[in-house]
Amino acid sequence: MKPLESLLRSFVELHPDEASRAFEALDLDERIRLFTTLPTRIAVTLMQRISPHAVAPMVMGLDRDRSKELLCALPPRIASSVLTHTEESYRTDLLECLPENLSRSLRALAKYPGDTAGAMMEPRVASLSSDFTVQQATTAIRKAPREALHYLYVTNRDGILAGVINMRDLLLAAPKDPITPLIKTELLTVPDTMPSKDVVQKMREKRFLAIPVVDYDGRLVGVVKQSDALRVVQDAAFDNMQKIVGAGADERALSPVRLVVKSRLPWLLVNLVTAFMAAAVIGAFEGIIAQVAALAVLLPVVAGQGGNTGSQSLAVVMRGLALREVIPGTTRQLITKELAAGVINGVAVAIVTAIAVFSWRLVAGDSMTAGFGLALVIGMAMIVNMAAAALAGAVIPLILQACGRDPAQSAAIFLTTVTDIVGFAAFLGFASLCMPLIT
Amino acid sequence: MKPLESLLRSFVELHPDEASRAFEALDLDERIRLFTTLPTRIAVTLMQRISPHAVAPMVMGLDRDRSKELLCALPPRIASSVLTHTEESYRTDLLECLPENLSRSLRALAKYPGDTAGAMMEPRVASLSSDFTVQQATTAIRKAPREALHYLYVTNRDGILAGVINMRDLLLAAPKDPITPLIKTELLTVPDTMPSKDVVQKMREKRFLAIPVVDYDGRLVGVVKQSDALRVVQDAAFDNMQKIVGAGADERALSPVRLVVKSRLPWLLVNLVTAFMAAAVIGAFEGIIAQVAALAVLLPVVAGQGGNTGSQSLAVVMRGLALREVIPGTTRQLITKELAAGVINGVAVAIVTAIAVFSWRLVAGDSMTAGFGLALVIGMAMIVNMAAAALAGAVIPLILQACGRDPAQSAAIFLTTVTDIVGFAAFLGFASLCMPLIT
Repeated sequence: MKPLESLLRSFVELHPDEASRAFEALDLDERIRLFTTLPTRIAVTLMQRISPHAVAPMVMGLDRDRSKELLCALPPRIASSVLTHTEESYRTDLLECLPENLSRSLRALAKYPGDTAGAMMEPRVASLSSDFTVQQATTAIRKAPREALHYLYVTNRDGILAGVINMRDLLLAAPKDPITPLIKTELLTVPDTMPSKDVVQKMREKRFLAIPVVDYDGRLVGVVKQSDALRVVQDAAFDNMQKIVGAGADERALSPVRLVVKSRLPWLLVNLVTAFMAAAVIGAFEGIIAQVAALAVLLPVVAGQGGNTGSQSLAVVMRGLALREVIPGTTRQLITKELAAGVINGVAVAIVTAIAVFSWRLVAGDSMTAGFGLALVIGMAMIVNMAAAALAGAVIPLILQACGRDPAQSAAIFLTTVTDIVGFAAFLGFASLCMPLIT
Repeated sequence: MKPLESLLRSFVELHPDEASRAFEALDLDERIRLFTTLPTRIAVTLMQRISPHAVAPMVMGLDRDRSKELLCALPPRIASSVLTHTEESYRTDLLECLPENLSRSLRALAKYPGDTAGAMMEPRVASLSSDFTVQQATTAIRKAPREALHYLYVTNRDGILAGVINMRDLLLAAPKDPITPLIKTELLTVPDTMPSKDVVQKMREKRFLAIPVVDYDGRLVGVVKQSDALRVVQDAAFDNMQKIVGAGADERALSPVRLVVKSRLPWLLVNLVTAFMAAAVIGAFEGIIAQVAALAVLLPVVAGQGGNTGSQSLAVVMRGLALREVIPGTTRQLITKELAAGVINGVAVAIVTAIAVFSWRLVAGDSMTAGFGLALVIGMAMIVNMAAAALAGAVIPLILQACGRDPAQSAAIFLTTVTDIVGFAAFLGFASLCMPLIT
């Protein structure tokens, strides 16, 4: 190996994440050139760390033999996820010329929807045959690739999962004994169609390092490792954050502009509708605004505080729902708490705001009465709006969840609608009641 | 065991998370009564799943002997985290009457700041002595409690970590051989003072199931497991989300109201200041608003769309920073992308808004010219505001990060300030330029 290659290899092996980031900073042409000559082992290490979004176009740019070589060397789960990101015609062609068993395994993996146990599992899993002796089991373990070993799963002739053996028990048993008495048959499995978030939940509950995945007939088809769960959990939390603000869950920091616009624009347009609804509320009070322009100046202050209060409550409740801390039995307690916090914060903010507005109006040359009137109006509006916002931030995701909808996807829209409309209606409504005071 | 206890035990063992949620729905008195009589093993299983916030008051309510018994049976890391949530006087008293070695270990754990490897590690870790034979090692493994075994760490006489042995290699070696040749001395360790987020990053990069933690002298003091990392990662992502909206990272769905107010109010007050700054911008245009009240009606529409666009950009960039996808080399590309997306979305939203505003003004009885003027003003303002918002959403967290500040903590405040001020200034500025058209 040339010294440069050996250096590159050390970089990739010691700092795979940094190396893959450096790779992602290259142009597509440079990437293709690099991967044409890079030793397969380094290339494969690198490809496992890079987002399949970035790998797929590069693979399509390589010549056929090279891309075949790389795909065969990748773990099937990674190869499958790269392939799903290539164009369909390319994928069909390539699958034709891959070795029979790999292409079969890739076709099977491609059938699993992206958010199921089947799609997150590692399909290469070593298993022991249930009629092995301890000695035969030891030999089989020696032959298996290290990364395929997690727990020692035992299957019968049809590939049906029979149980699991503890490495320590095997270590302590006599070589000639059959392994049957060592098999623990009570074990947690998940079906290949189980949603990934339920798989992660199971892992968290049971604290297993790995869970075997079985198909409809009980055959062992793969294993989900804790490192896979780590990835899913981290992604899920950030997906949630993006969905709340209406950027699609798939969007990444360097996604192409076309995709970014497609992911964000629909949400902006829906929000535009709610903004117009809020504007209609203001429109109903156009008359009094024309009389007291100071009202217009204060509108964003009322709406802003309502929006902030609602988002705080929403973020905390969304976390509680995601981690299943919020359950039917604690709903009433949660709502009471949020309402109480909303009222207390509302009173505090109202006092500060009222003092500020009163001072401002005096400086602007209003009478004491008019200043006091406007301070009173905004103070009362603030309390009503912030209490309503805190309540809505808690109740809206609970209702969406109860209706079987994803609260992350739409809670923010409903919340903005409520806080804007309540805020403007309360502020301008109180103002119109107090018009004799403030004009 | 009575049938009821046996039923309860099955519930706790098979569905620990559900059981702990059912527990959390009980009153403090009921909890104390339950834990006074519950068999220790079930109680301990349950205590490990419940937030230390909820366990601590209950422990303080139990009688001294019972709480001693439970704390001794808990894994030290959990016991330590429960104790840190009790009152100081209670803690000092209790530590006095615990067994000497446990209280020493708890005192040591309590010294680690909450966000370090020391605080997230499991301190009970079994290790093999470097002068063992394979046979002696096997015996030692048999004696060690199962949960203390992850990798087979080897230490020398002073407790200094010498290396690690693969269970498979041990399984395949002759019983009388020394274990020395099997020891892999190159292994990744982390110091007990390393920040937890760096530990998690290392785990993700290297894909280890566990990493040994060493003290300043290289002594093995504990081990961080992947399940610990899972917890830290999930919490970190949600902490981020809460920090962005100004609810403290520590807040949970059922935190007491006092804590909720303390965690959220400061942020609301800071935001109030920025809201007043935005109001001051509107105030500067009070004259033209008094002439054209329709401007006041449209103010929240402009601000709302700017805010939304900025939050989308912020969420995606924050994710990129947290997962280290955004690095100095890709900054320019990121900023260009966000600006382009902002302009494109801005134009799209501007067209829809302009058409809606034009129709509204005609229905309201304005002239064609006035309607067209207002549509033009809001359209131009929307493009400027949304482009600025998208840019700010990307640039603000990058600047905060570069200054060594936590972008989650304060990015949203700066962002709102920018989008409100730019939005109002652009909208009312264009309006005052076009006054001849719109009046």
